[in-house]
Amino acid sequence: MRIENLSEDGFINYLSKNFNAREPCLGIGDDAAVIPKNADKSYLVTTDALIERIHFMKDEITPADLGYKTVAVNASDIAAMGGYPEFIFLTIAAPKDIEIKWLQDMMQGFKQALDLWNIQLLGGDTVGSKQDLFISATLIGSCVTNNIKYRKGASTSDIIFVTGFLGNSGAALIALQNRFALTDEVSALIQSHFRPVPALDEGQWLGAFSEVHSLMDVSDGLDQDLRRMMKASSKGAIIDRDRLPLSKELLQAAALHRFDPIACALEGGEDYCLLGTIKSDAFEALSTQFSKRFGSSLSPIGIVTEGEDVFYRDGGAIISYTPKHFDHFSI
Amino acid sequence: MRIENLSEDGFINYLSKNFNAREPCLGIGDDAAVIPKNADKSYLVTTDALIERIHFMKDEITPADLGYKTVAVNASDIAAMGGYPEFIFLTIAAPKDIEIKWLQDMMQGFKQALDLWNIQLLGGDTVGSKQDLFISATLIGSCVTNNIKYRKGASTSDIIFVTGFLGNSGAALIALQNRFALTDEVSALIQSHFRPVPALDEGQWLGAFSEVHSLMDVSDGLDQDLRRMMKASSKGAIIDRDRLPLSKELLQAAALHRFDPIACALEGGEDYCLLGTIKSDAFEALSTQFSKRFGSSLSPIGIVTEGEDVFYRDGGAIISYTPKHFDHFSI
Repeated sequence: MRIENLSEDGFINYLSKNFNAREPCLGIGDDAAVIPKNADKSYLVTTDALIERIHFMKDEITPADLGYKTVAVNASDIAAMGGYPEFIFLTIAAPKDIEIKWLQDMMQGFKQALDLWNIQLLGGDTVGSKQDLFISATLIGSCVTNNIKYRKGASTSDIIFVTGFLGNSGAALIALQNRFALTDEVSALIQSHFRPVPALDEGQWLGAFSEVHSLMDVSDGLDQDLRRMMKASSKGAIIDRDRLPLSKELLQAAALHRFDPIACALEGGEDYCLLGTIKSDAFEALSTQFSKRFGSSLSPIGIVTEGEDVFYRDGGAIISYTPKHFDHFSI
Repeated sequence: MRIENLSEDGFINYLSKNFNAREPCLGIGDDAAVIPKNADKSYLVTTDALIERIHFMKDEITPADLGYKTVAVNASDIAAMGGYPEFIFLTIAAPKDIEIKWLQDMMQGFKQALDLWNIQLLGGDTVGSKQDLFISATLIGSCVTNNIKYRKGASTSDIIFVTGFLGNSGAALIALQNRFALTDEVSALIQSHFRPVPALDEGQWLGAFSEVHSLMDVSDGLDQDLRRMMKASSKGAIIDRDRLPLSKELLQAAALHRFDPIACALEGGEDYCLLGTIKSDAFEALSTQFSKRFGSSLSPIGIVTEGEDVFYRDGGAIISYTPKHFDHFSI
């Protein structure tokens, strides 16, 4: 059997069955691992790799954007647990013909992100590679232990919400692949693809409320990530397709270039907004506070149900939907 | 300028100048980074990558050995600071034609090492790769903060010591490249190359003595690593070539196959023993205790001097020596 026949989730399942974390640690299966720090706080640890010709093409992303994004995607995992990032470790495997200037530009974008979110680079490994560039970062964050949010906490009848907008990054990929003219809307979409903003303040804020039952970030598309959360919680969900928060830039570009903005929202990936569930009778008050604090909405998109299936509702009718999930191993 | 013109140390220098760690953290430049844990202890964090066709050839190392070695080389960095390993994060970027069986065998060797040293796998990232296999691990260990040992602590007239033997792993590479017959000695050398044993107990034991002024592991060959320690300490060294601890297996294989065992010891790399310095008047007592505790020697190989040069003494005469250092970027 070859790995192309096994999904990333399949390999992670294999690992989590064979490698158990011991209390008070939390291991494989959430956005970040949890290890003990002191009486009140825990460390959160996450690691993400970006591989040339899989996650990026060197001639399609600037080195500064790549450096920035390496930090941002990891920071989003820390935000997803309710924590704040502190220390990063960077591994670069580079072919010997790579230009020093290119690496320096990458490190400049990397440093911009560190400065934005007050993260210290404390180490890493710099090695050679025969052909492709490999970048891997491990980010360590902190969180008040009682405030850590997990995927597994969703309860029946919770309101499902997302922060920010869905689908911008997926639409940017369509725009790049089809060489759309760089109108203001298209440029804004591309900006959210290359310079995603992790919801760090939002994640910490949400972490402080016990009524927030579960939290994760949307990195592989809402549909796939929601299914992961529901599976971890042994719950199901009904999502209202017409309540998915879509930006005006996405709607305008989709209308002009005739692509489906809902498909971008459900399958596009790399949104790096937060997905979570809140006790239903607490939602309205929390949502009002959130809007006051952040000037953006906590968009309710559906409810948690018994069972383990995810359904979509289009107006009144529940529709079936079979998404084409992105899998790193099957590209 | 291309990266092949810049050494790994050069790039690390660039990083450490541009990315400063803030107290109480220690960042780039030692075997592991230090981050605060609680009143008494700190966490140590290290990361090491193994890249196909750079660090290993898939047809020359078994997957189980590769999995074991991924843990061992990182654990050695924790030993080098005086700590013990606790949590590991594993990133695998694999081409889609890799066999699941191969990955499972790798994970089995990986798990053997975790069980040996009581380490928990808590997370990682599994992604695709276009061609080469890329393995990166981040290991987090703990240490009583007062017991952490650094490279920078060497003092003039300290005795320089190593634990274990030097050159076995380098000799194994010669044996593999030249297809030496697998005598008992050659097999033992190859075993230390594929299954290095990090000096974890020795590192923790040495960490408890204030007379141990500096400590690191020997991963890139004694000469290069000693120069790094002396540079970090702003000191120099005189090494007695005839006191380098060489195993009888190395001496026998070198005599039979006519290669230089001293060159293996100085340049071979991947020994994963410990190199350190001890206050001169404390050396004898510590060395006696070490032998009683571990049944092996703390071998004195030279002394720390003023200045920043490393000299070798062959019998009475000081000789010059220009090693050919291994650099990851220039292969």
